[in-house]
Amino acid sequence: MHDPLEFLRTVRSVAIATIDDGRPAVRMTDVMLHENGKLYFLTARGKAYYRQLKDDPEIAIVAMDKNYVMVRVKGRIEFVGQELLERIFDQNPAMKELYPGDTREILEVFCLSKGTGEVFDLSVVPPEREKFAFGGATVEKSGYLINDNCIACGVCKDACPVGAIIEGEIYTINASICLKCGNCYEKCPVDAIELIK
Amino acid sequence: MHDPLEFLRTVRSVAIATIDDGRPAVRMTDVMLHENGKLYFLTARGKAYYRQLKDDPEIAIVAMDKNYVMVRVKGRIEFVGQELLERIFDQNPAMKELYPGDTREILEVFCLSKGTGEVFDLSVVPPEREKFAFGGATVEKSGYLINDNCIACGVCKDACPVGAIIEGEIYTINASICLKCGNCYEKCPVDAIELIK
Repeated sequence: MHDPLEFLRTVRSVAIATIDDGRPAVRMTDVMLHENGKLYFLTARGKAYYRQLKDDPEIAIVAMDKNYVMVRVKGRIEFVGQELLERIFDQNPAMKELYPGDTREILEVFCLSKGTGEVFDLSVVPPEREKFAFGGATVEKSGYLINDNCIACGVCKDACPVGAIIEGEIYTINASICLKCGNCYEKCPVDAIELIK
Repeated sequence: MHDPLEFLRTVRSVAIATIDDGRPAVRMTDVMLHENGKLYFLTARGKAYYRQLKDDPEIAIVAMDKNYVMVRVKGRIEFVGQELLERIFDQNPAMKELYPGDTREILEVFCLSKGTGEVFDLSVVPPEREKFAFGGATVEKSGYLINDNCIACGVCKDACPVGAIIEGEIYTINASICLKCGNCYEKCPVDAIELIK
């Protein structure tokens, strides 16, 4: 995918998860701007959502388009003041109807400028995944790998629902289609499959 | 709305938020079944999502349809064993392609049988909201109310972006359209507006 952040702005309505006093909370919200590699959002100071972000600025975002392409991003937001409100309202005209006149003063703009993420394309079988990072973050490793305890017995290959396991002296996992379901990990008779931390 | 849980099954792809070692995590996932007032989902034992649910079974769900009707639900899930897998695969044929043959053994079914939620209809201006609860949970109160310190000055009415404030000896808030933005709360000159806990 060319630019997963632009994908999120194009889908527009994304789900943003926060922590609410130790519990998960999530709502649909619009990506208001995508500029200079940053995503901008809005909330109002009176909302539970605002209080959650003030308590803990870590968020996780997910969106899916009509073609079943899913993008997930996580990172730590920063509040950026109200300078961008004018441009946000110009580029998101529905906001003018929702917060007419001076009532927009209750809104606060925040942005995500650094984070990690993953594109998961469910429009193809098997689904394809690709990790990414932006704003100076490092791509996170996760999932499974086969170590040199592998005896090349092929049990993992039969256990894989999507054909992600490649034969060899030591078998390997094609991370770009691995579902991370763990079936190979459970079935390997010699514990040669590890969860990457 | 007739049945917000059936809405979630109809939209099918919903965002489910969990806690990942103290941080928010979220992914799109399908509602596999809606039966007897319960929502059923799947995950695989090898996924981070499964580990998160085992560590902390509290989830928050959000989904929005093409008409900008949003439903949010939160509650505590329970794992229910694999008895329902056959029916889930029958009613969600794409699963047969994704987890062919015996590979489905890696999947675990969980359900949400009790929770609270809200319907937020953004297809109308102002948006309308309605709270609900299911499985024996109690509808949660939230938002703002005007107490008897109100001097009926009308400042709150002017501050409300959506016309949710109703004149009277003591002004009142129409909770069905209140955005919970907090502008009235900030602007009230006599601190007559309270956040409901």
